[in-house]
Amino acid sequence: MEFFEKEEPISPFIRVSANSLKRFACEVFKALGVREEDASVAADVMVTADLMGISSHGVQRLGRYVGGIESGAINVNPEMRFVVDSYAVGVLDADNGLGQVAAYKAMMKAVEKARQFGIGIVLVRRSHHFGIAGYYALKAVENSMIGVTMTNTTPLVAYIGSVEKYLGTNAIAFAAPRKQPPPLLFDGALSVAPIGRLELYSKTGREIPAGWVIGIDGEVMRGDAKKIYDAFTKGLAALLPLGGHTEELGGHKGSGLALVIDVFCGVLSGASWGYHVKYTTVKNANVGHTLIAIDIAKFMKLEEFYERLEQMVSEIKALRKAPWTKNIWIPGERSWLTMQTRLRIGIPLHLSIVEELKSIAKRVGVKFDAETL
Amino acid sequence: MEFFEKEEPISPFIRVSANSLKRFACEVFKALGVREEDASVAADVMVTADLMGISSHGVQRLGRYVGGIESGAINVNPEMRFVVDSYAVGVLDADNGLGQVAAYKAMMKAVEKARQFGIGIVLVRRSHHFGIAGYYALKAVENSMIGVTMTNTTPLVAYIGSVEKYLGTNAIAFAAPRKQPPPLLFDGALSVAPIGRLELYSKTGREIPAGWVIGIDGEVMRGDAKKIYDAFTKGLAALLPLGGHTEELGGHKGSGLALVIDVFCGVLSGASWGYHVKYTTVKNANVGHTLIAIDIAKFMKLEEFYERLEQMVSEIKALRKAPWTKNIWIPGERSWLTMQTRLRIGIPLHLSIVEELKSIAKRVGVKFDAETL
Repeated sequence: MEFFEKEEPISPFIRVSANSLKRFACEVFKALGVREEDASVAADVMVTADLMGISSHGVQRLGRYVGGIESGAINVNPEMRFVVDSYAVGVLDADNGLGQVAAYKAMMKAVEKARQFGIGIVLVRRSHHFGIAGYYALKAVENSMIGVTMTNTTPLVAYIGSVEKYLGTNAIAFAAPRKQPPPLLFDGALSVAPIGRLELYSKTGREIPAGWVIGIDGEVMRGDAKKIYDAFTKGLAALLPLGGHTEELGGHKGSGLALVIDVFCGVLSGASWGYHVKYTTVKNANVGHTLIAIDIAKFMKLEEFYERLEQMVSEIKALRKAPWTKNIWIPGERSWLTMQTRLRIGIPLHLSIVEELKSIAKRVGVKFDAETL
Repeated sequence: MEFFEKEEPISPFIRVSANSLKRFACEVFKALGVREEDASVAADVMVTADLMGISSHGVQRLGRYVGGIESGAINVNPEMRFVVDSYAVGVLDADNGLGQVAAYKAMMKAVEKARQFGIGIVLVRRSHHFGIAGYYALKAVENSMIGVTMTNTTPLVAYIGSVEKYLGTNAIAFAAPRKQPPPLLFDGALSVAPIGRLELYSKTGREIPAGWVIGIDGEVMRGDAKKIYDAFTKGLAALLPLGGHTEELGGHKGSGLALVIDVFCGVLSGASWGYHVKYTTVKNANVGHTLIAIDIAKFMKLEEFYERLEQMVSEIKALRKAPWTKNIWIPGERSWLTMQTRLRIGIPLHLSIVEELKSIAKRVGVKFDAETL
């Protein structure tokens, strides 16, 4: 296998083994009072993001969760309970615990329901940021099911026709098993660009293209990322929804779909929605999620589904390419290849992230002992 | 109430009453051997589209269905049966009948399942084009439920990185009841622009903006609509997915979501997918749909859901507007206002459509007696 990384590591960086990084993150959570099994889930979600080349959601976010715990916003000893548990539907009250733990529990419940009723849908209220949506959809896949995950987030995106942050970068993930890995995995927010990319561009001095951000004056911003990110953090700009700021290219579709996600995750779940959803370090952040599992075997033989999906995949791979296209990628392929690569050669960590992890380690009284590869 | 039309009628046109137009469409279907109750559903779907200001899917498509029946592609006496009917899930084999009839039956089944299990998902195989996806989602709303509809279509859209038609203008609709009408109704295809708009622009000599169509050489086409539409029909161009032709503005999200819809509607349902899906006048078109109903009352009191949704809606309406924005619209508002208007002053029909309807009437032996308002 050739080495493949979806996301080019930014220098200077070191590479550490995934297992040791996971162990470290787990120790940090445990030192803060998180139960071992919960710590293990939260660490796994983060390191899986790093393995997949989604470093915005990797251990660089550990500080955010640590901050949430230290501020008391994240409850390390939550009593999560199903306030609704009826046939194919459920609602989990996460009691302000870690979003990763809540979403994992909710998806396992959805899988159990799907095994009996063919489909299970479990909503989560009073939760926190849960990392990558795709992680939980893949838990359904491990059970030979289709998984769908949705979440709302703190307000970052302008609704069509407006110029201020209201919607979250509400995300939807869909995963389906294939005969051989990788599974099909679509995982995307309904904003054009993720907020992490804006932040990264501002740190690395790159130019922001037109179409990502709208200023409060209604002008689409482009160019100097530092300036734009500053405006963004001051509430003078917002991310644009998929399709952009007008209907001509479909901005009403992107913002409409983001709103639909919020009706499930925020309104129907009993969580917060729109600009009421709070950041990880704020009490009662009340983030909401939706976890759906669908049992393929109830519809057709699994083998038949695999064959049909494989045919679709091979048709897409064989389509006539655009001149600039080397490879037509199926959703999930690149993150899977990146994972295989990083399992072998390690996860690249920028030295500034290493310093941050060391400082967290010191603060909570554990050792940063990730194994350098 | 002021008159409001989402879609400006194109001159020369007359206005006809919705009821008489529905009756006429129904008579046409009946004359072709369609059972009365089926004819009535198909006519209602089409005229509802006209009422909502989605004339691309209105009676201007009657000829397409008539052609499908005359060619023998659409079975007027289908034996539609549920080949899967297990707890919360089902699959309806539509036996090549009218897509409208199949989708309606499937949604009614999903509603029945949702009443018992909290959610119902019914897939449809061996169907035909079913008109506007939103129609069926609204059937769930009539039962105080959330409705979700998806469908695949004949290939029209380029998958990201490719330049040829593979995906359909795969659509997703979502509807939720509100305390007072209009219900929330999102209904959109995952292409930037619908094919009907291209056709309309080519007929009316308008310019096509950059971002709707990609040529087989990989160039984004703009300008002369007639030339572009010609290239499109010759297989030398394809519609672009929401987000466009590159990942910079999210083309992988639009094409990824369109693919997800096809995994449900095509792969899992047992229907066709991608370029195997055929046009209405072709035998075994094998279009697939997905109909989902979710019983709100299983999650929270309906009254509470209404209050929460109303708060969200009023927050969005009050957001700071972009300078070019007069009104911030909630999904479904404009089509509802258009419907109220057209129920009163009539549905505008371009004279060329009137001529077409008259010619259909003559061919099948009924009278075009739509009442002019």
